[in-house]
Amino acid sequence: MVWEPAFESAFHPRVVAIVGISAKAKLGGPGGSGFLNTYQELGFAGKIYLVNATATEILGYQAYPSVSSIPEPVDLVIITTPARAVPDVLEDCIAANTRNVHLFTAGFEETGEEEGQELGKRVQEIARRGGLRMIGPNCMGLYVPESRIGYLHIPPTKSGPASFIFQSGGHSDWFISHGQDYGIYFNKGISFGNGYVLDSTDFLEYLSADPETKIICMYLEGVREGKRLMKLIRETNPRKPVILWKGGLTAAGSRAAASHTGSLVGQTAIWQALFAQTGAVPVSSLEEMAETTMSFLCLKPSRGKRVAVLGMGGGISVYAADACGREGLEVPALSKSTQDKLKEFIPSAGSSTKNPIDCGSVFFDVSLMQREAELAATDPSIDMLIFMPHLNLARKAGPGQLDKLVGYMSDFALKNPYDKPAVIVFHSFINEAWENELSAKLRIELSRKGVAVYSSLAGAARSLFRLYEYHRIQKELAGHVI
Amino acid sequence: MVWEPAFESAFHPRVVAIVGISAKAKLGGPGGSGFLNTYQELGFAGKIYLVNATATEILGYQAYPSVSSIPEPVDLVIITTPARAVPDVLEDCIAANTRNVHLFTAGFEETGEEEGQELGKRVQEIARRGGLRMIGPNCMGLYVPESRIGYLHIPPTKSGPASFIFQSGGHSDWFISHGQDYGIYFNKGISFGNGYVLDSTDFLEYLSADPETKIICMYLEGVREGKRLMKLIRETNPRKPVILWKGGLTAAGSRAAASHTGSLVGQTAIWQALFAQTGAVPVSSLEEMAETTMSFLCLKPSRGKRVAVLGMGGGISVYAADACGREGLEVPALSKSTQDKLKEFIPSAGSSTKNPIDCGSVFFDVSLMQREAELAATDPSIDMLIFMPHLNLARKAGPGQLDKLVGYMSDFALKNPYDKPAVIVFHSFINEAWENELSAKLRIELSRKGVAVYSSLAGAARSLFRLYEYHRIQKELAGHVI
Repeated sequence: MVWEPAFESAFHPRVVAIVGISAKAKLGGPGGSGFLNTYQELGFAGKIYLVNATATEILGYQAYPSVSSIPEPVDLVIITTPARAVPDVLEDCIAANTRNVHLFTAGFEETGEEEGQELGKRVQEIARRGGLRMIGPNCMGLYVPESRIGYLHIPPTKSGPASFIFQSGGHSDWFISHGQDYGIYFNKGISFGNGYVLDSTDFLEYLSADPETKIICMYLEGVREGKRLMKLIRETNPRKPVILWKGGLTAAGSRAAASHTGSLVGQTAIWQALFAQTGAVPVSSLEEMAETTMSFLCLKPSRGKRVAVLGMGGGISVYAADACGREGLEVPALSKSTQDKLKEFIPSAGSSTKNPIDCGSVFFDVSLMQREAELAATDPSIDMLIFMPHLNLARKAGPGQLDKLVGYMSDFALKNPYDKPAVIVFHSFINEAWENELSAKLRIELSRKGVAVYSSLAGAARSLFRLYEYHRIQKELAGHVI
Repeated sequence: MVWEPAFESAFHPRVVAIVGISAKAKLGGPGGSGFLNTYQELGFAGKIYLVNATATEILGYQAYPSVSSIPEPVDLVIITTPARAVPDVLEDCIAANTRNVHLFTAGFEETGEEEGQELGKRVQEIARRGGLRMIGPNCMGLYVPESRIGYLHIPPTKSGPASFIFQSGGHSDWFISHGQDYGIYFNKGISFGNGYVLDSTDFLEYLSADPETKIICMYLEGVREGKRLMKLIRETNPRKPVILWKGGLTAAGSRAAASHTGSLVGQTAIWQALFAQTGAVPVSSLEEMAETTMSFLCLKPSRGKRVAVLGMGGGISVYAADACGREGLEVPALSKSTQDKLKEFIPSAGSSTKNPIDCGSVFFDVSLMQREAELAATDPSIDMLIFMPHLNLARKAGPGQLDKLVGYMSDFALKNPYDKPAVIVFHSFINEAWENELSAKLRIELSRKGVAVYSSLAGAARSLFRLYEYHRIQKELAGHVI
């Protein structure tokens, strides 16, 4: 589709109409009154019109019988009527010369029933004929903190550098609510469901050009224009990392996707080719999406993939090395001279100075931890660092000691004095309530300060490897033409 | 080695000696006094002797200058002296005609230093010459709840059907403490460290014949007699599932293992062959070990690997299907007649009756959930069920409703009325403190009642697939001779 500047008005609307709000609606219900509630709570500064065929007043607002009866041009229409009423509402939007429509309503081809399929075809036909820039159906629509517009659940009003294009409303909701716990705030969020008119490619084109969006997260089940998607990602990715979760890559997932957003998800091999040829960053769950986005926001490129792990406990060290190895990182032995210096203060029995560095007792003296981290960071065989302190030991070390340790590690991560990415893992070693609570609290606090911090070593290793791969592949692709 | 009945006395000792407890020791310290403390706390009913070269009384006990000066035969000697003192202590044990020795002390070849290597060789030579049945060095030794003997941290006194053979003391400690949260209690636990004399094979032979052990969990870094291990697992596995975590399968992990227990871990291909030829159940972390053990303890064999997932939310359904598919399960569409019956009470828009069954609203009425589960369970295209309720919705549904739902699901899982394994996933969907706490509480409660319950869908799917594979491979191997 040709991009028109008018589309901007959907993301920054001054006048919004909500269609399908019942005369007896309570504020904050599951449909139209939910959107009204969110807009109010977020402090939307524009004008809101409610549309209802028979009522004259709803929730203190004057009600209008149709979009075309609204006395001024409408920037964005949110449709929440039952599915069978949608064709008439769309005709009304066309008559009103309104272009931006968010069709929240579900119940089309994703039902698998003939009636829904027929209705879906009619809706598509009307929307295309009328030139509507329709988002949906079966989706949550637009979240733009700066514009104070959002989904049914009240999202944060704080804006950030990440934007997302998600086919699933539930996933969008999760990402908005929990992104904060990973230090992620959004510039624009798009939930587009069945994508009758505007598809992921259209939104990607928009965000690719959007100066406020620095990184793009996508959850897709299917796509109409595969080649265009590939071209857009390849074009965007070097400037703005594109993190892509493709749902329905397994046979079972593919069938589930058809029931969810009516998507024909295509063959696994085609998607694998897309990842290979664009360097899009692959993830496969919401947690991975959040952890990977956090990593890209917090960390600079690393020169290589050789990691030093500063952890503790013999069995844990073997596990740590295996976990990093499985995710693609290397865990090389530290150089002889680094090991010799470490041996000056790490007892050799029951611990290790090779890598992972098994450094239990240093948690009782943060200055030892500092020497250790600096030795590992200045070793030329190391490209990145993972701190994995045992919270239980750090706590046992006495009051104030934990704060000192956490302070040291986050300073190191933020200042990155040796130009080598450094991250923290607060894993729940002993799985007791205080530890789970403390590690969750620390993760949220530190990630909001810009420190990349993870709940598992596997997650940290995976994210670090993806960051490394992203930059490696971009360099490789830079020399080629598609 | 030839098995001698005397080895039984190590697991069920009447007389124990602790060597290397300092004259000024406080009860519960990191070495000998820690073992003394644990034995006392567990209520060990036998006799404990303390050995110290110079002191005459320690912590209220008469101290003896040597093992050979103890006035009665000793069933088990625990050695906690510094490494360099060990050769003399072993000579003393031989002189006293004591056979069972647990060498807790570390500081041998795992240090990577020449001194430790030399000392290790001497210790091995003495122990073998003297016919000592030595456990260790560098390990936690034996945990036998029934005998009231255990590690440094106070373990549960409750006994169960699982036994373990772990090369890592830290992993052993974790498994004992957290096994309870998965409903796992142990019959015998063995932490054997560097395995100078008794190796995993010797312990496996013992547990294979032990009538009280029904399932065997192993964590290995290396093994001396690979062929014997393979033969023993193959022989044991059809009667008692052998769940095996091989640490150090990656290059980095292999090097870390050398620093941990001095193990030469061998090539990945050899271990892959071992898994293939024995049907040992592979796991690769402590959590997986615990989840898999729980599954084997709770669940009967399934006829196939086709699972029905009763969850909710469109995006979640695609994720659920993908997650199961990735772990090896099939998530087939329910039969037409089942779908038709489901449609009588599940609205089609925004939900699905195929599989995963997207059944949000039924959480507000448990009888609907019952109909749904029974329809899925009686569908001939389904072999197993996963319940994955959204705790947030279940809670919203009103007081008592959550209890009803949990009660229904756990009854179904325990009674298994359709002879199809059924498990529950309490995943943290919204990651709020109350939800994390509630899901952890429910997992612990239900698993202790014998319900297989997981914190992630991937974990549930992986465990169910392993259970299926175990039985499939055993059937396949039954027809072959190695």
